[in-house]
Amino acid sequence: MDITQTGLRNSPDGVPLNIQAVADAAGVSKTTVSHVISGKRPVSLTTRRRVEKVMDELGFEPNFFAQALQRNRSNTIALIVQDITNPFYPALARGLQSTVGAQNQVVMLFDAGAGDAITHAFIKDAIKRRVDGVVVAVSNVEQEISKLVKAGIAVVAVGSGLSELPMDWVSADDERIAFDAVTQLAAAGHTRIGMIGGPVGTEPAAGRLAGYYHALDSLGLDKDPRYIALGDWTTGGGLAAMNLLLELEDRPSAVFCGNDLMAIGAMNAIIGAGLRVPDDIALIGVDDIDAAALVRPALSTVRVPAQEIGRAAGDLLLRRLEEGYGPSRRHVLVQHTLISRDSI
Amino acid sequence: MDITQTGLRNSPDGVPLNIQAVADAAGVSKTTVSHVISGKRPVSLTTRRRVEKVMDELGFEPNFFAQALQRNRSNTIALIVQDITNPFYPALARGLQSTVGAQNQVVMLFDAGAGDAITHAFIKDAIKRRVDGVVVAVSNVEQEISKLVKAGIAVVAVGSGLSELPMDWVSADDERIAFDAVTQLAAAGHTRIGMIGGPVGTEPAAGRLAGYYHALDSLGLDKDPRYIALGDWTTGGGLAAMNLLLELEDRPSAVFCGNDLMAIGAMNAIIGAGLRVPDDIALIGVDDIDAAALVRPALSTVRVPAQEIGRAAGDLLLRRLEEGYGPSRRHVLVQHTLISRDSI
Repeated sequence: MDITQTGLRNSPDGVPLNIQAVADAAGVSKTTVSHVISGKRPVSLTTRRRVEKVMDELGFEPNFFAQALQRNRSNTIALIVQDITNPFYPALARGLQSTVGAQNQVVMLFDAGAGDAITHAFIKDAIKRRVDGVVVAVSNVEQEISKLVKAGIAVVAVGSGLSELPMDWVSADDERIAFDAVTQLAAAGHTRIGMIGGPVGTEPAAGRLAGYYHALDSLGLDKDPRYIALGDWTTGGGLAAMNLLLELEDRPSAVFCGNDLMAIGAMNAIIGAGLRVPDDIALIGVDDIDAAALVRPALSTVRVPAQEIGRAAGDLLLRRLEEGYGPSRRHVLVQHTLISRDSI
Repeated sequence: MDITQTGLRNSPDGVPLNIQAVADAAGVSKTTVSHVISGKRPVSLTTRRRVEKVMDELGFEPNFFAQALQRNRSNTIALIVQDITNPFYPALARGLQSTVGAQNQVVMLFDAGAGDAITHAFIKDAIKRRVDGVVVAVSNVEQEISKLVKAGIAVVAVGSGLSELPMDWVSADDERIAFDAVTQLAAAGHTRIGMIGGPVGTEPAAGRLAGYYHALDSLGLDKDPRYIALGDWTTGGGLAAMNLLLELEDRPSAVFCGNDLMAIGAMNAIIGAGLRVPDDIALIGVDDIDAAALVRPALSTVRVPAQEIGRAAGDLLLRRLEEGYGPSRRHVLVQHTLISRDSI
């Protein structure tokens, strides 16, 4: 194959030339070819078969945009994730893709980690492209999401951060996750329990912080504001936050981390300071990303089933596409599981 | 906001009603509105400004499909990756998105881990959607890729597995990577060096196997076919392959693993068998995914810069979109780096 010979299959005029070519080769009119493609008018079976055979032989595909324009449907689902390099989100993406892919929907994945400006541009673009639906697994996009909803695009939120907006959503019970994690640390004998949380205003920081407070109250333990440090959900953020906690004279003996990446960063900070996990400081994370089982000591965590969340979001979206909006919002709550390893 | 009040912004007829609404509100004809949108015919500045103001107020967006149909361009780049849950690929995706996003291209990411059938369907669909370009980071899709090239879609391959096809490509020097890794093991005194490779026919299994053989030849070490086990690039595959090598009576004292996930799986197999890394068996991987630094012992590896590969692929694609195909193919070779940690 000579690359210089490879031109655009369609002329700049787009489809008409191809329809003409099909019509010529099949010995029918352009109108007949159009009717075969659109299925809107009856065409005799013999003619239809002849035209379809010619289309196949010529490698002719009906123009996607012309069809989309006609149906106002694009068979595209956009997925916006907070940070594609956090293994939680690729797993979610796989779950979503497996569900909507079975219905011939293509997932257009967008990594909001690329920056706020291009995230906003992406959402605006999603409206123009008439995506059939959007799954939103990112914080701080309320305004943009309102526009999607107003544009009649089906939106499913992951997490409860967008629950003020009128849309279906999938979430884990973030408060309960934190409550269970802290209770686990207390059961191992810890009374000075700290937390490394996500930044204020990001999903699911608020719910997990509330659960942490709630557990300390229930257990009758002190709430010491110095015991809370915030990271940005990354290993680097967890490491920096843990270093702050390590500076305290009466530092916590156990730390609940808002996700596994921050817990792994905290573990590196502790080991880097010449201390041991769990002997000097016990740790527990959230998510159960693959790396949680691979670090040493292996990280105890609360498993949040990312693929299942992706599948549930896909199911909700497909139902909305089929049924349209009704007066009620739907909510799927996924179950979490405590995973005991060696860091407590 | 009441969700029951939220209907589709466009009638089933699509754009015309909206153009009419804009025309009515601006007190001009539909034709004038069309000319403002298309820019194909002159419209007085005053009229243009009035129409644009009304479009803005009504939240009217020119129909994406109508524009795409007109320009035969979709401003979409498809990225097909082997396995989105392998952290190498999300990093590649971020690099690509940052590069093409700056040119208002949206990346449609597809995870081939979802299965061969839907991967083939996705590529077929990409042609119908007239994506402007495709970045292919997956094996065994030669036939489908030929179709993309024939359809005049710009294609950039990641890795050398598709280098028979006439397209630009980005790769690391897989043979040299393996050569350098094996040389590193030999420098630590090892003479019985095994390999855990990827499945035959998948990228970049062949190049890394060739480099392994080449290094053993150069070093004057025995090539023992029993010392090669194959995995499927996942931790599970690496674990199973290592278990096979552990069954050998005169097992290797060091193993070069084709990627980090398999090396981490191998590490778990070794530790699970009651042996130590590197005392009983030394390990080296390829990629330098985040987890490589997080496992204990920390994994020595050959760093392949995934984000840089994504950016290079984006640059090649944007150049092709601007210049069209010429007689020559372009190739970007990214540099690898040895990362010494504690597993050798």
